[in-house]
Amino acid sequence: MNKSNYCVIMAGGIGSRFWPFSRNNRPKQFLDFFGTGRSLLQMTVDRFRTLVPVENVLVVTNAAYKATILEQVPDLPAENILCEPCRRNTAPCIAYAMARIRAHCKGGNANVVVAASDHLITNEQEFCRVIAEGLGYVAKHDCLLTLGMRPTRPETGYGYIQIDRHQSAAQGSIMPVKTFTEKPNRELAEVFFKSGEFLWNSGMFLWNIDAIMNALHRYLPELMLQFDLGVTVIGTDSEEAFIQEHFPQCPNISIDYGVMEKASNVMVMEADFGWSDLGTWGSLYDLSDKDNNGNVSLHSQSCFYDAQNNIVTLESGKLAVIEGLENYIIAENEGVLLICRKQNEQHIRQMVNDIQVLYNGKYS
Amino acid sequence: MNKSNYCVIMAGGIGSRFWPFSRNNRPKQFLDFFGTGRSLLQMTVDRFRTLVPVENVLVVTNAAYKATILEQVPDLPAENILCEPCRRNTAPCIAYAMARIRAHCKGGNANVVVAASDHLITNEQEFCRVIAEGLGYVAKHDCLLTLGMRPTRPETGYGYIQIDRHQSAAQGSIMPVKTFTEKPNRELAEVFFKSGEFLWNSGMFLWNIDAIMNALHRYLPELMLQFDLGVTVIGTDSEEAFIQEHFPQCPNISIDYGVMEKASNVMVMEADFGWSDLGTWGSLYDLSDKDNNGNVSLHSQSCFYDAQNNIVTLESGKLAVIEGLENYIIAENEGVLLICRKQNEQHIRQMVNDIQVLYNGKYS
Repeated sequence: MNKSNYCVIMAGGIGSRFWPFSRNNRPKQFLDFFGTGRSLLQMTVDRFRTLVPVENVLVVTNAAYKATILEQVPDLPAENILCEPCRRNTAPCIAYAMARIRAHCKGGNANVVVAASDHLITNEQEFCRVIAEGLGYVAKHDCLLTLGMRPTRPETGYGYIQIDRHQSAAQGSIMPVKTFTEKPNRELAEVFFKSGEFLWNSGMFLWNIDAIMNALHRYLPELMLQFDLGVTVIGTDSEEAFIQEHFPQCPNISIDYGVMEKASNVMVMEADFGWSDLGTWGSLYDLSDKDNNGNVSLHSQSCFYDAQNNIVTLESGKLAVIEGLENYIIAENEGVLLICRKQNEQHIRQMVNDIQVLYNGKYS
Repeated sequence: MNKSNYCVIMAGGIGSRFWPFSRNNRPKQFLDFFGTGRSLLQMTVDRFRTLVPVENVLVVTNAAYKATILEQVPDLPAENILCEPCRRNTAPCIAYAMARIRAHCKGGNANVVVAASDHLITNEQEFCRVIAEGLGYVAKHDCLLTLGMRPTRPETGYGYIQIDRHQSAAQGSIMPVKTFTEKPNRELAEVFFKSGEFLWNSGMFLWNIDAIMNALHRYLPELMLQFDLGVTVIGTDSEEAFIQEHFPQCPNISIDYGVMEKASNVMVMEADFGWSDLGTWGSLYDLSDKDNNGNVSLHSQSCFYDAQNNIVTLESGKLAVIEGLENYIIAENEGVLLICRKQNEQHIRQMVNDIQVLYNGKYS
């Protein structure tokens, strides 16, 4: 295992779209989504175990979740959990982790992979092969490498990366990026899908520490001003106090918008290891095993009568008996039962807000 | 209070149509249906408290429910709970209770009202007035008096009693019966409802002990043979052993079919005190308070989005968030969630059977 390899896992999200299964005190990344006994965070950490020494695994999160992370990943050094005092999107999160890695590797090289804590990957062997290849590539190249997933459908829920297959710099599956695009509408998604030139933007990145530090300083100088003030304290006992003071002053900006869409040395590595950001009940439904009528049951037993294409998750050991429903989410957790049409799951966020107000946070 | 007044409450039913709210070990009559803190049985006993001394209140049930009844009605003398060793329909149940009353009143008169433990009555004051009038009537007349409820809709879920408004014996609201009819189909129910000659058969009866004993001996001699053997032991410590031996030998027959439809001295008292046998989720829905969209929530909080005419009952303190459902039953209790169209609630009995087999009784 290469001791210069680092991994940064972003685990600060709250995942309100999976309410009531996810809650403020137990967001998506900490849930055992598939009843396998392992949370999404645990599965994410485990995927990197053959590539990155555990002392080089950093998890960036909210202080409220630190205990949960230590409980779920007991061999992770406590100081590797970086706590953000407030939510400031992905650029400050990544800048903080890079500042820590810079301090940790003491001027030596570091090859870094950045990943979300709450995505699903179905072909872990292929994932490891791709990440190993990517880490090897960024060790030798001054570039910002993003992972682009080969699309399997004209998905409107993801951003896309347009590749430049013909440019001379292309090397194997690693190619220059032409553009990043926002989530497309249905018609555009169809065009993207058919063209073969567009990959799903997975939000996973690889780079060496010099390349990302140069890019952050160049494109987000205001942000890096904060972290440059901490060069002598990050990695020491004074780091926490420093972060408490300076992190809230960082601009709220994503790494995609702040760096990736601006830098000229961005490359994309085309990959195909069965990926989903598990952003919606619909995506969880798509990925789950179904019965003959297209029904999915997670964690609990279900009996269906004249019912098709539903996803049901109750607390473990419970039984659902469903008659006459089609295309519904039925989710029960800790005193809340949600029944909602799959097509209207984008309303769940509003429902959570309503209920937050109505019940003074009781069910949030 | 007239010490010759007796009341018999039939509480042996299992109420599988309200599964999973009702269970084998906790049938309908023991449930706090409306979240008032009183079960249907408790409400039934309470309704008779001004008319019948508690030592004259008998509850006929299954031995498995005796402890529950004593818990719910702590001032009921334990010996007033008559336990049937097996289910034999209403005629043996009533014959057993009458044999006990005959022994208890020691040859004196007894005016008896027989009622189910699991019906709902909304106007309790009117109920008491009607029952007092009926008890007074049967004290002086050799007749079998049944309570006929003035219909409020062409219900197909009840049997009907046709009255003879013009016969000379009619006295106030107490009239001779022309016929008893089974549950009608929709068309027939409309005719019954419009005619004004048909009342709902409530299954409540009033009579004096001589009148019912004579009728039982005349129309069900085979049944009464069993109880006549026990004349010297019923009401003594030997009663339980006697019943264990002889009750199972009783024919399985209803009091309606065995006696009421055959006897010539049957009268009906027309009443209107807001009655339902709570036989179905639909009847519970009809009787419950509704929000502006026709939704009913029992025991639990509910938020509805684009949802109409549903009935929701979760365990106390839980929250239901319901999107895009119309005319459904949503009922959760002790590890089971049922979602079923109201129009298909007659299938619930089959579902309970299926689940009994599939899960070896676990959720029954």
